[in-house]
Amino acid sequence: MIPTWLRTIRCLLFDVDGVLYRGNQPLPGAREIVLLLEERGLPYMLLTNNATGTPAQYAAKLAAMGIPVPAERIFTSGEATALYLKKQEPAGAPVYVIGEAGLIEPLERAGFWRVERGARYVCVGLDRQLTYEKLKRACLEIRAGARFIASNPDTTLPTEEGIVPGNGATLAALVACTDVRPTVIGKPEATMLLLAIERLGVSPAETLIIGDRWDTDLLAGHRAGTRTVLVLTGIHQPADLVHSPVQPDLIVDDLVVFRQTLAEAWAESPETR
Amino acid sequence: MIPTWLRTIRCLLFDVDGVLYRGNQPLPGAREIVLLLEERGLPYMLLTNNATGTPAQYAAKLAAMGIPVPAERIFTSGEATALYLKKQEPAGAPVYVIGEAGLIEPLERAGFWRVERGARYVCVGLDRQLTYEKLKRACLEIRAGARFIASNPDTTLPTEEGIVPGNGATLAALVACTDVRPTVIGKPEATMLLLAIERLGVSPAETLIIGDRWDTDLLAGHRAGTRTVLVLTGIHQPADLVHSPVQPDLIVDDLVVFRQTLAEAWAESPETR
Repeated sequence: MIPTWLRTIRCLLFDVDGVLYRGNQPLPGAREIVLLLEERGLPYMLLTNNATGTPAQYAAKLAAMGIPVPAERIFTSGEATALYLKKQEPAGAPVYVIGEAGLIEPLERAGFWRVERGARYVCVGLDRQLTYEKLKRACLEIRAGARFIASNPDTTLPTEEGIVPGNGATLAALVACTDVRPTVIGKPEATMLLLAIERLGVSPAETLIIGDRWDTDLLAGHRAGTRTVLVLTGIHQPADLVHSPVQPDLIVDDLVVFRQTLAEAWAESPETR
Repeated sequence: MIPTWLRTIRCLLFDVDGVLYRGNQPLPGAREIVLLLEERGLPYMLLTNNATGTPAQYAAKLAAMGIPVPAERIFTSGEATALYLKKQEPAGAPVYVIGEAGLIEPLERAGFWRVERGARYVCVGLDRQLTYEKLKRACLEIRAGARFIASNPDTTLPTEEGIVPGNGATLAALVACTDVRPTVIGKPEATMLLLAIERLGVSPAETLIIGDRWDTDLLAGHRAGTRTVLVLTGIHQPADLVHSPVQPDLIVDDLVVFRQTLAEAWAESPETR
């Protein structure tokens, strides 16, 4: 019943929406799995493609739902973008940014400074204050040779008003007017996962990502070389996997089942911390 | 030397930029061909994909360059969009518009009224006051069932600042977040040409379009069933035609040569007015 590879896992990555909560409701077992991981001291990280919010804002949102996750355990695509660029440019560089606090703050903290002209990178995340002027500046900078970096490629965003444009819509506009495709940091690309894994000091083969979508979480895990778990509390169900080029290593109904499976795997091999 | 079909032409359609002028400079023969057509009483129309300006603004710009074209002879993709919708909805309908005066004014004149919610059509032209809020409203309306109409698909626009986003960039953003493709009125689609031809009371076979690009003017002419002339004062040269799926019926260096060719064709068959 318990897959043997589960005993070798030393690090867990979680998608957030549809895994730990849905809207403003915590999902069953979310609080308990976080408490278990904290108790065992197992490295874990929550990964979200959303680049508008900061880790502190996410931590507060989770705390309000009774899920006690420290801000250091939350990795947004905005944080990942800053970390990615910091590795390219340890001394920082001039950047033109389309985005909100969740992208701007980590970039500035990593030593990058915002310019209107002469940017080395154009960094694009969802910006609900987007204007034609911003698209124009990004277009001119990319055409002048700035590298085009995207925090995440999500084309839409579910909101109370309905399904609204996500960062992928902004990217499509910029691809159309520049003929340049962006380097994407967030899921389904591997970059954000690899950066999280490196930060946790483990290897991809010892890592597991648990998510609710094959087209973001499972694909990113596959590309990064981690184990993958599909949890059925969000978007995709087993029937959706017929469309997927990648299959999860494990499917669980919810985090209650996952926590139990994990605890059983550990009980069978007590030497794994 | 003179192609025999030229004698059967009873109507001329002109692209504007790269044909009659370039930037703010009139091109050789532009004034003279307009004077010839006015003198002969031959129906003609200037067709521009630009939906930001009005015919009166274009007429003033041309007059300032010494090219005396009445506003009624200028057909923008904004005017064409309003005429197209008027044929679908003679009594008008609620529309959500992203665009400038060159799109909004003809729509309102055709009996359409602007709404924020409950639109039957979402009409999109270049809007240099574009915001995320406007993209969001268009996205929600299209997702709620409004028909998605685009004045023109140009992805970029040459300006003094450089190459900046055109309406095609906005369209790409909306396609990304709605999964719906727009009905395009302007070139290279045939619709704008067919509307101009109908307004002039002739048939496509008796019509000639003269333009400087195969990927807009020649393609639109081919699709509408007109004769096509490539003039070499703008973007495309004969070598570029190896990439083109359509070939022009005639290539001329400039409007001076074209006017002479036309005059000779008429001289050989004086009964053609």
